[in-house]
Amino acid sequence: MASWIAIADDSDFSLHNLPYGVFSCADKCPRIGVAVGDHVLDMKGLAEKHVFDDLDFDVSVLEQKTLNAFAGLGRETTGRVRRRLQRLLDIRTSSASELRDNHERRKQCLLPLDSVTMHLPVDVSDYTDFFIGLHHAQNSADFLKKGADITQLMPYFWEAPAAYHGRASSVVVSGTPVHRPKGQIRANEQAVAGLSQQLDFEVEFAAVIGTGNELGSAIDVDQADTHIFGFVLLNDWSARDFQKNEIAPFASKNFGTSISPWIVPFEALEPFRVPPTGAGRPLPDYLAQKVTNSVYDLPIRATLEVSSQKYQMSHCNTKHAIFSFAQMIAHHTRGGCPLRPGNLLATGTMSGPTRPEQGCFLELSKVGTEVYEMTATDFSERKLSRTFLEDGDTVEFTCQLQSSDGSGKVGFGTCRGQVLPGNE
Amino acid sequence: MASWIAIADDSDFSLHNLPYGVFSCADKCPRIGVAVGDHVLDMKGLAEKHVFDDLDFDVSVLEQKTLNAFAGLGRETTGRVRRRLQRLLDIRTSSASELRDNHERRKQCLLPLDSVTMHLPVDVSDYTDFFIGLHHAQNSADFLKKGADITQLMPYFWEAPAAYHGRASSVVVSGTPVHRPKGQIRANEQAVAGLSQQLDFEVEFAAVIGTGNELGSAIDVDQADTHIFGFVLLNDWSARDFQKNEIAPFASKNFGTSISPWIVPFEALEPFRVPPTGAGRPLPDYLAQKVTNSVYDLPIRATLEVSSQKYQMSHCNTKHAIFSFAQMIAHHTRGGCPLRPGNLLATGTMSGPTRPEQGCFLELSKVGTEVYEMTATDFSERKLSRTFLEDGDTVEFTCQLQSSDGSGKVGFGTCRGQVLPGNE
Repeated sequence: MASWIAIADDSDFSLHNLPYGVFSCADKCPRIGVAVGDHVLDMKGLAEKHVFDDLDFDVSVLEQKTLNAFAGLGRETTGRVRRRLQRLLDIRTSSASELRDNHERRKQCLLPLDSVTMHLPVDVSDYTDFFIGLHHAQNSADFLKKGADITQLMPYFWEAPAAYHGRASSVVVSGTPVHRPKGQIRANEQAVAGLSQQLDFEVEFAAVIGTGNELGSAIDVDQADTHIFGFVLLNDWSARDFQKNEIAPFASKNFGTSISPWIVPFEALEPFRVPPTGAGRPLPDYLAQKVTNSVYDLPIRATLEVSSQKYQMSHCNTKHAIFSFAQMIAHHTRGGCPLRPGNLLATGTMSGPTRPEQGCFLELSKVGTEVYEMTATDFSERKLSRTFLEDGDTVEFTCQLQSSDGSGKVGFGTCRGQVLPGNE
Repeated sequence: MASWIAIADDSDFSLHNLPYGVFSCADKCPRIGVAVGDHVLDMKGLAEKHVFDDLDFDVSVLEQKTLNAFAGLGRETTGRVRRRLQRLLDIRTSSASELRDNHERRKQCLLPLDSVTMHLPVDVSDYTDFFIGLHHAQNSADFLKKGADITQLMPYFWEAPAAYHGRASSVVVSGTPVHRPKGQIRANEQAVAGLSQQLDFEVEFAAVIGTGNELGSAIDVDQADTHIFGFVLLNDWSARDFQKNEIAPFASKNFGTSISPWIVPFEALEPFRVPPTGAGRPLPDYLAQKVTNSVYDLPIRATLEVSSQKYQMSHCNTKHAIFSFAQMIAHHTRGGCPLRPGNLLATGTMSGPTRPEQGCFLELSKVGTEVYEMTATDFSERKLSRTFLEDGDTVEFTCQLQSSDGSGKVGFGTCRGQVLPGNE
């Protein structure tokens, strides 16, 4: 799939992708956009030009300031819009009058990506963080419950997707800085109020819900994928010294959660599906998914940047999930809990089996007891050592996939945030 | 304070109260109302009649379908509206033309309470459940962490308000039935998918946030009360057999949380303040509140109704809280987590020291190991035994307070819900 718009070979935003976000620029208030190469398509602008009028949906949802209403239309409709965008942009099928040769429209609706500001793409309203990464669970068992093995830590780890409710109000878009949080730590058996000294990142992957369900109704595991609008990268910033003494993640996590600005559509990741870790084990009926390739093989790279120098921090992969999003949705709604458009369901840390594949300092530095050394990404000799994050550090996640026909890449942009000193 | 509207002596809704809710009726779509005696004032109607035009706020917030925007105006403004309503309704100060003797306006804006349907008063968007009841914590320590005492359960129990994030999407208004949830239980060391056999209630009290805070900013403990719009009763329905095996309350709690339809304004509970349990102990500065009477002395009565017969289940009291809402807010926002208008902060179960004061079956039946016997509320000989809730049971919380001058009562209406069989 080639476009009449120039798309660089290493761009995250080929025609295979076409991710959704919310942007603003000098003369445009926040609105829905779609990334393509170095540009963003103004979906509000295109809707106003009647480009989607024949697609049988209320186009006013494309004129809103978040993607919630659009996502809530469901995948059949959002899929039609996606195919329309591919037709508009594909060099073989583009209709000259609609966009390609309509210079005024191009000027109005096709904007340089570097001229826009990205916003939180959805009103999250409920955010759920799962704990379904095999290696992360194994490596953090000691921290979470001293001396416990995985079975003692959580009897159901293999039998149902474990989760806790996160904080929706502090989910922020990539680029938003995160202040080192204040809270309570414990020193010499005393509670001490102060700044976290064990600030951590967590490499996660998250689904954005499209259509939801009513209170009291459950979503069947084999239907659950149809409720997913798309996916983002997610950094679940964590204060380990706060977390150690909480009954559930609270002040240790609710100061900020970063997501990538672009929501990659469900369809764009279809080619990258693989079986989950631990596939084939017996599961209760409501979690027994017919589809075998139910999770994704997405390498996520985490870097740490200091003084404009990037260091390789971690290589994770979402294939280490022991449950699929379909199973997470089935479990989440099993008792009748409603999901709503824009809700986030995250995987938990997607660590791999070796140390450089561990997705947080809790693992990389063994809760701060061992210094972790990182090498510069530019193959220079520079090295950086950390046990936890320091003020000024910028954490960035990226994930880039090659389409099977080699004609373009799929990615999320970056999920990035800088640690700023805490406010005293 | 007497009104020209007849208010029964035992009404929850004297002029001392004037709680806010959202109602609809045959010819009125959902809108904001205020309860007074057996009536509800249509605030949208009054706003349209320009009753609040001189109060220096955007009256269109009173024409919305939830209280979020109104609550978000802040207590100075909502307090002005409250005083205006008291003036309109007080027999000594009512202005004849505004409402009392304006028969057409009365007909339009003063509706019989039994003719309206109540709705969820706010879009909750984030719900936090604290764990700050002394007796509940002591009685549930064994359940939550086998063999642990309170100190081991949570080192910071006395030092910071413990909490977990709840599920906002399943918060429902009183009267909404709750289906017995499906989930996973454990039998003979096997995971078994099925209906909860240990369905429980929890007597809680919750604050509804008015003005929020920005990401990264903390709310000072001595300013925190100004961020509270009002209060509701809350039933945190719980499936104990699910909860036992969860890393944090998730499927065990997210199938439904009921709140009273009426939000009692902050001002109305001012006369009922007392010091918290454990007052005077050393606390970190950010939790050291200047006001001594920081929690409330509110008796909450829980009944269980079967076949139109009510049984006395529990007498709780909110004075068993070891932290105030101001302290909860200070702790919640300490790391910069934003609160937003309409957010709920609940206390956790407000059990007292004796068995009939325990606010859930986890305590009353010692996790189902001892039958709990209840007596009928009509002083008949009838008795009812339970270990947990059965299908058809209706749980109801009420709380009624007498104004200090004896001229009227303050209450929340009822927080009520019936258990329906699970959907198989």
